[in-house]
Amino acid sequence: MHIDHVGIATEDAAALADLYADLFDAPVAHEEEFDGLRVVFLEFGDSYFELLEPLEDGTVSRYLDANGPGIHHVALETGDIEAALDTARDHGVELIDDDPRPGAWGHDVAFLHPKSTGGVLIEFVEH
Amino acid sequence: MHIDHVGIATEDAAALADLYADLFDAPVAHEEEFDGLRVVFLEFGDSYFELLEPLEDGTVSRYLDANGPGIHHVALETGDIEAALDTARDHGVELIDDDPRPGAWGHDVAFLHPKSTGGVLIEFVEH
Repeated sequence: MHIDHVGIATEDAAALADLYADLFDAPVAHEEEFDGLRVVFLEFGDSYFELLEPLEDGTVSRYLDANGPGIHHVALETGDIEAALDTARDHGVELIDDDPRPGAWGHDVAFLHPKSTGGVLIEFVEH
Repeated sequence: MHIDHVGIATEDAAALADLYADLFDAPVAHEEEFDGLRVVFLEFGDSYFELLEPLEDGTVSRYLDANGPGIHHVALETGDIEAALDTARDHGVELIDDDPRPGAWGHDVAFLHPKSTGGVLIEFVEH
């Protein structure tokens, strides 16, 4: 698998995108409003930072309330998300999403519960 | 820049490496004891997970005490770490390391303070 992106929770995606563009020369690759979030993808080689700004109450706004801004999850790209979920299930990993669902940028996604994966919120993504 | 690795704080790097090898087909690329840490790099395409297990008191053990296991930092690879630090300095970013220092795997590294970078602990790394 390949690191598709690092998800970052923020109160202001536009300001953070501007800062990261300046500091890291990372251009905006895609932006959209999705699932109550403003989502901005910044390009780092063949991976991305995914900036997540809540526009309404939800998991990211609750994360920000509890933890403040920062790294929210890591997404791994797979060519077969169903097989990746089956492997996780076979190893007793608790799944947040039993089946793939539509994610940002038109990709299929599914999250694993961090209590099964060393405290790391892992997202599988299939383009 | 390119996402070199995602740093993950853990109490047991060997067990987490085994789990991630099973779940994500991520082989061990390098391991060493460095700076009071057991460090294990797992390969994900041309990026890595860097598992960090404290062997003595230090920043990672304090992170674990405060936050539990999970994502600790993101490292960006640059071909010119001095220039990257100069750019950060020019933008008023607080630096944890004013100058590059030797990091794991023989690389030069320098960290930026997360209060200047949206709550994200960023490491610059030059191979």
